[in-house]
Parts: sequence; structure tokens; C-alpha cells
Amino acid sequence: MDTSCAPPTPATPATPATTPQAAAAALLQPLRQALPDLPLRGDRLWRRLEALAGFTRPDLPWTRRAFSPEFIAARAWLREEFASAGLAVRLDAAGNLIGRREGRMPGAPALASGSHSDTVLQGGRFDGILGVAAALEVAHALHDAGQTWHHPLEVIDFLAEEPTDHGVSCVGSRAMAGLLDMPLLQAADAGGETLAHAMRRIGGMPELIDTARREPGSLAAFVELHIEQGPVLEQEHLAIGVVTHIVGIHRVEITVTGQPDHAGTTPMHLRHDALAGAAALITLAHHRARALNQAERYVVATVGRLAVEPNSTNTVPGLVRMSLEVRSDDPEVLRSFADDLLHGAQGEMQRCRVSATARTQTLTPPTRADDGVIAAIEQAARRHGHTHRRMPSGAGHDAAPLARIAPMGMVFIPCRGGRSHCAREWSDPEQVLAGTQVLAATLQGLDRQLATAAA
Amino acid sequence: MDTSCAPPTPATPATPATTPQAAAAALLQPLRQALPDLPLRGDRLWRRLEALAGFTRPDLPWTRRAFSPEFIAARAWLREEFASAGLAVRLDAAGNLIGRREGRMPGAPALASGSHSDTVLQGGRFDGILGVAAALEVAHALHDAGQTWHHPLEVIDFLAEEPTDHGVSCVGSRAMAGLLDMPLLQAADAGGETLAHAMRRIGGMPELIDTARREPGSLAAFVELHIEQGPVLEQEHLAIGVVTHIVGIHRVEITVTGQPDHAGTTPMHLRHDALAGAAALITLAHHRARALNQAERYVVATVGRLAVEPNSTNTVPGLVRMSLEVRSDDPEVLRSFADDLLHGAQGEMQRCRVSATARTQTLTPPTRADDGVIAAIEQAARRHGHTHRRMPSGAGHDAAPLARIAPMGMVFIPCRGGRSHCAREWSDPEQVLAGTQVLAATLQGLDRQLATAAA
Repeated sequence: MDTSCAPPTPATPATPATTPQAAAAALLQPLRQALPDLPLRGDRLWRRLEALAGFTRPDLPWTRRAFSPEFIAARAWLREEFASAGLAVRLDAAGNLIGRREGRMPGAPALASGSHSDTVLQGGRFDGILGVAAALEVAHALHDAGQTWHHPLEVIDFLAEEPTDHGVSCVGSRAMAGLLDMPLLQAADAGGETLAHAMRRIGGMPELIDTARREPGSLAAFVELHIEQGPVLEQEHLAIGVVTHIVGIHRVEITVTGQPDHAGTTPMHLRHDALAGAAALITLAHHRARALNQAERYVVATVGRLAVEPNSTNTVPGLVRMSLEVRSDDPEVLRSFADDLLHGAQGEMQRCRVSATARTQTLTPPTRADDGVIAAIEQAARRHGHTHRRMPSGAGHDAAPLARIAPMGMVFIPCRGGRSHCAREWSDPEQVLAGTQVLAATLQGLDRQLATAAA
Repeated sequence: MDTSCAPPTPATPATPATTPQAAAAALLQPLRQALPDLPLRGDRLWRRLEALAGFTRPDLPWTRRAFSPEFIAARAWLREEFASAGLAVRLDAAGNLIGRREGRMPGAPALASGSHSDTVLQGGRFDGILGVAAALEVAHALHDAGQTWHHPLEVIDFLAEEPTDHGVSCVGSRAMAGLLDMPLLQAADAGGETLAHAMRRIGGMPELIDTARREPGSLAAFVELHIEQGPVLEQEHLAIGVVTHIVGIHRVEITVTGQPDHAGTTPMHLRHDALAGAAALITLAHHRARALNQAERYVVATVGRLAVEPNSTNTVPGLVRMSLEVRSDDPEVLRSFADDLLHGAQGEMQRCRVSATARTQTLTPPTRADDGVIAAIEQAARRHGHTHRRMPSGAGHDAAPLARIAPMGMVFIPCRGGRSHCAREWSDPEQVLAGTQVLAATLQGLDRQLATAAA
């Protein structure tokens, strides 16, 4: 575990605020004191998570697809909750719901935190919405305590992080990073409605999408709290994950070509069995991913989708098409995994008398979290005595587009059995509160640290 | 290769036919002479194959599904061809088209030969119809030569050998063996027509199905000529395959159960990847089949159908269902293969953190060809100087039900590249003629041999 932390605060004596230097020194005065814990209310936070779970398709819990009636109702409710926390609420042109609490340092960029309130079909009650509710609780606690930070605080419910029915994910966060272009806005769902039209339906203004864009430097930092969606923290009995990277993803279509022969009349040694070749590749891909995965390098490889032709009980498979998805924080592994796999499998393919080819579908590079934000999260975890480790995020998040415009960090909490994107997704109230404490302390720490740096 | 052959003919001197013994001796007189080659006409045989190819769905060559308009038209044409060869033609209650040439030995059971004129969708021009056309050519050559055998000869076009749209195969041959029961006759196709109704439509009388049944012993022998539908004869440059068994088939559904986890967030060592488990089973099944297959034992194992759940690029497969089809001439291998496979794979399944179960769907025992018929086929091949080997039939045929009621044998000829059940299915005219020569000489040899035994 990394032990770096924020630079020590200089022990400047307090002076009357009569010069610019003196004014800055007065501004910095609280920094010399221990930061007070915010009066977070775990009960309020949990009630909000429970209330949001109620905004679901009744036939298919917990489903709150972006643009659906449940989503629109949840947004209306959230808007009221934002307001009750003293936030100034607005919807930007991209349909992001933003609550803002002003800071006291003139012209300072905002600290931002949030996630998303939409879900996958039969998704969970924590994925996304936890990050919104926790950021809201931080703002609400500030409001309750009557505290004002140096920086403004923005609580953001990004529009449509999960892949929409138009096939676009991270809609709002892409727009904020200037990555939501016209082809994506014109993507249509099965019913023919474009993403732009759907965005307009929930109050966005796609024709003014550029006004939602934030320039690099216009946010002081972005920190997102999220459930891990994997089993590592639970397995290792840790309270907090400190995200170092959001992994890159290389999606490859592998085609194994053999020959469809009669399953009764073709002896084993005369077959060209595409599925036997595919089986060898699947096994080799697992071995390769395990070998490449190390303490300092995260590698997973998944064959998740596979189709056999002709897929008949009594025909030797003639063709197999399968997906290979490689995720890593190492760009070189991402780039080379599939080619190396096929190269290493040549002997096996010859033994199976088949050929295999790979075609890249998408290659997204990894996103690094900001070292300063990582340090602030670790310091926050230590402050609250929560066990923690650094880890990559194997899933994509709104934080990835945001990293294009702001120093970015993510806080993970465990979820039961690592389950996510299913109705059984669960984190305990204590785990939720621990993550929110770390989020609050991180934002608080960054507020002081960045103010100090600016002064 | 086995060199056994028919017992030598006793060198009995010819005597006047004044006593029963003398009459029998007169009957046997031709047996002491070399059997004359029948005047087979390869051109006529080939023209019939060509003509039958014309009875196809024009949009989908070569398709002549049982009960279809093309099938009915081909049957009408075949009936004329049967008659032109001097055969007495009838349709039995099961819809088998039967042409009969009487023999001269009073009360002798018939020698039977034939196959089927229906095809799979986009099937070939030889599968099935070759065996009908060749048997017809044998009868036609007898007719041309004015020869009469001891035994009657029946040329049979069995109804619907390929699986029908009602899901039943070997319809006519099953009926002849007394194996077509009421549930099979009541099976309906997608349009709701029962097999019984379809049978009636082509002239059969399902309500009298028992009249189509032949009792064991009522046929002297049944010999079927067929393309190999596999690559072995071509690979080994042999003209004739002598079938020793029609393999038994054990069809098993294997279910591999893991857990559907997020493909990004679940490290390799914490996965329960059902497809990784399935891949290991596929590889092990291939190794096991290769190890069990020996000179005296035919074993093939095929995973031909496989379905992954949820079959999503970014989800670790949680469940795999796949077919395992084992074919062998060894009943013990058939019975034990799947269980032994799963037992032997326990370590691999544990490494993949999944479980695997197998459920038998169907288990059909192997069918042995008759040793006497095998010997007659080998003698016939030698007589014509055709290279040959013994081999199992990896596919099912009308000969399998027929083996329940008659000494059964099958003659294989090579087909190009082992391809069958596809438009490219092909055998050369010389290969077709060679097979027909062997069929003719086999029937001729059996006619003499069985008459000798009866005398």
C-alpha cells in the first residue's frame, strides 16, 4: 500500500487580513486545525437508497432505465432532495442533474462528486445511485453544519451511465468531457427514438450540448464512490478500495474455421473441429491472463460470447465465432494479448486442423487516477481507520470521461459476493457509511490541500 | 481384412430330377459353375441418378423431403422405372415402394436391397437414392439377361429415412421391422399434420401398418449400398467399405454450472467460468475418444451444440449447456464414456470452480451386420478386384431396423472429401458402378449360398 499523502501544511502564524497575503493567510487559517468530521447521517443516506429503490419497474426489480418513467420520477424526487440539502439545482444541456454549493475562495473551480441514477435491466440498488446519494449526503452534512468549503461542491447525477437502448454509455459524463458527438446523439433505439430526442424528453437540450462541456481545469477534482462490483475487497476483508486505474478494454472477435463434417462418419483424426480449436484457445487465454496478472498489473481475459455453426448435435462444428475481452491497466498487454494468444496457439490449431483469426472491435486505453486524489483517498481512509488497498477498476465508470478534464479518483466499497448488475446486489449500511465517510474526508482534504496549493 | 467366405460348394454330380434329392440337385446345378457377371449398365444407373436429382425444390438443391411434391413426383417416376425393369410394383401400408422379381425356389424368402429416396434439406444426390437405383439396376440387369435367381429379389425404396418434419427417421424400415408404433405415427409437424396423415397422403395406409411388418426370417437377407458419408475410404484409396456395425449412439446433455460475474471486476482466480469448464471437457472428450478408438473399436465423440448463458461479451459465462454425442460399435464404451469423462474431469472442474452434470437423452445400441453377409460382400469385392476394408457405419441407415428381421449387410463407396448432407456430395460414376457390381455379386452370391444351405 502506498503511504504518500498530502504535503504538510506550513505552520504560518495567523495575521490580520489587511494585505492580500494576509487575506490568503486568513483564508488558510482553518487548514492549520484538524479537519472536523462532517456530521454525516447514515440513516438519511440509507433511507435515500431505499427510496430510490422504489423507483423501479414493478415487474422487474430493480430496473430504472435511463429515460423511462421510473427514471424521470426518480429524477424529480432527487431534485427535491438536492434542494433540501441546500444545493442550487439545475439540469445541464446534456441532462446531467447538478446540485451546487458555493465555496468561499473567489473563482475557485468546483470539487465534483457523483455517479448515476440509471440502472441496467434487473440491476441493483447500489450501482451508480450510491455515488449520487453519498455525494448528496456530503453536501447535506455541510449544509447541516453550516460549513463552507474553499471550493464549490457539485453533486452530479450523470445521465445514462449504463449502455442505453441506443447503445451509448456514459452519456452525461461523455458530454461533460466533450466526447458526445453528433453520431452518438443520433443513435436510435429499437423504436427509432434517437438519443437526442430521449435527452430532450428528460429536459436536456441536445442542440446546446456544448454548453454542458467543461474545459480541462474547470473542475478542481472529481471523486466517485461506487460499489466494487467484484469480489476482491470482500475476499480480503477490506473496507475501501482506492482505484488506481480504470482498466482499458480490448474487444476482439475471434473466428475459428474448421469444416462441418458428419459426427458419426468422420473419425477423430480426420476432423477439422472448430469447437475443439475454440476450446484450446479458451483454455490458453485463461492461462495467459493468469500468467500476466501480477501484483502491479491487472489482467483479465474473458470469452463471454460464443456461437457454433451449424450448432447441431450430429455435426462436427465447422465454425466458431467468439468474443475475447481483455481488460488491463497495462496498455501493452491490452495491445498484444490477442495476437500473442493466437501466435502461441498455432500448434494447437494445427493439431485440431483449424485456423483462427482475430479482429479488433474496440480498443479503449486505460485511464489513470490522479496521484494527488489517490493520496487524498488513502489519507481519508486512514483518518477514519478503514482498511484499504489500491486496486484497478475493472468496470467503466463516469469517472473515466471525467479524467479527461479533471484530476480523478474513485473510492470502492465491497459488495456481497462481488455480485452486481443483478437483483441480489448488496452492500451493508456500515459499508455504505464507511465509503461515504472516506468520500467526505477525501473531498474535505482536497479542498484544503488545493486551497493551500493555490494560496 | 477378414478372408472368411461362403462354404465351398459340394461337388455333387448332376442326376436326373426324378426324386426330391434329384430335384434339389438339379436346382443346385448352376452353383457348381462360376457365377456369370450380370450385364449391369452403368450408363442407365447414372442416368437414373441424374433424373432423380431433377426432382428437387428448385430454390434449394438437392432437396426432396419426404411427403413433399418433389418426393411424390419422384416416387411416381420410380414406380415406372421399377416396372420397366420387370418388377412387380406395390406400395406397402407403411408407404414403402417395393418392386419384386420372383425366384424359382418354391417358398424361398426374398433377398432384399434398397435404401431411400428422400433427402435432408439441401442434401445430396447420392445419399439414399444410390441404394435404390443400384438395387433397381441389379433387378434390371437380371431382367435384361432373362435370369431368375433361387430367391425372389425385392427392391425397396423405404419411406422417409431422414428425420421427417415430425421428428421421426427410418419411417418405412421401422414399420417393416415392427418398430413404428402409434405415438410415432401421431407425431405432428410444425403445421400440425401427423405422420400418419402424411403417410396416407403418399398412398400409405397407417391404419393397416401391421401389414407392412415382416416377421424375422421372412427375408433371406437385406443388403444396402450407400455412400460412406465420411472420409475414410477416400483417404485410404479404397473402393469398397464392408460394414461390420452400425454404431450405437449415446446422446447426452452436459450442463456446466458456474456463476455469471462481471468480466472486468472479477479476477481470474475468483471466477466460476462455466465456459472454461466446458472447454476443458471438450478437450478431454477428444482425447478420450482418440484413446479409446482402436483398430477393433470405433469411437467418436462430438460436442456439436453449445449454448452459453448469459452469452454476453462482458460477463463471465455462468452456465453452458452442450450436447455430447458418442458413437461406437462397443456397447460398453457407449454406456460409460460420458460418466468416465465427467469423473476424469473432476480436477479440472474444481480448478475452474464449476460443476458439471450429464443427462442421457437417447442411448441406441450398436447393430451388428451378419457375418455371412459380410463374407459375401468381401467375396464379391474380391471377385471384381475392388480394394476394400471392413469399417463401421458411423451413421444410421434403414439397414439398422432391418437387422431386427433379416441377416443384414451394407456396402459403402467413397464420396468426395467425405462430404454428405450438402449440395457438394459426390461420387464418381466409376465408384457408383463399382459399388453396384459388389452389391449385385453379393446378392448373387447369397442367392446361391443360401439356396445351397437350404438344399
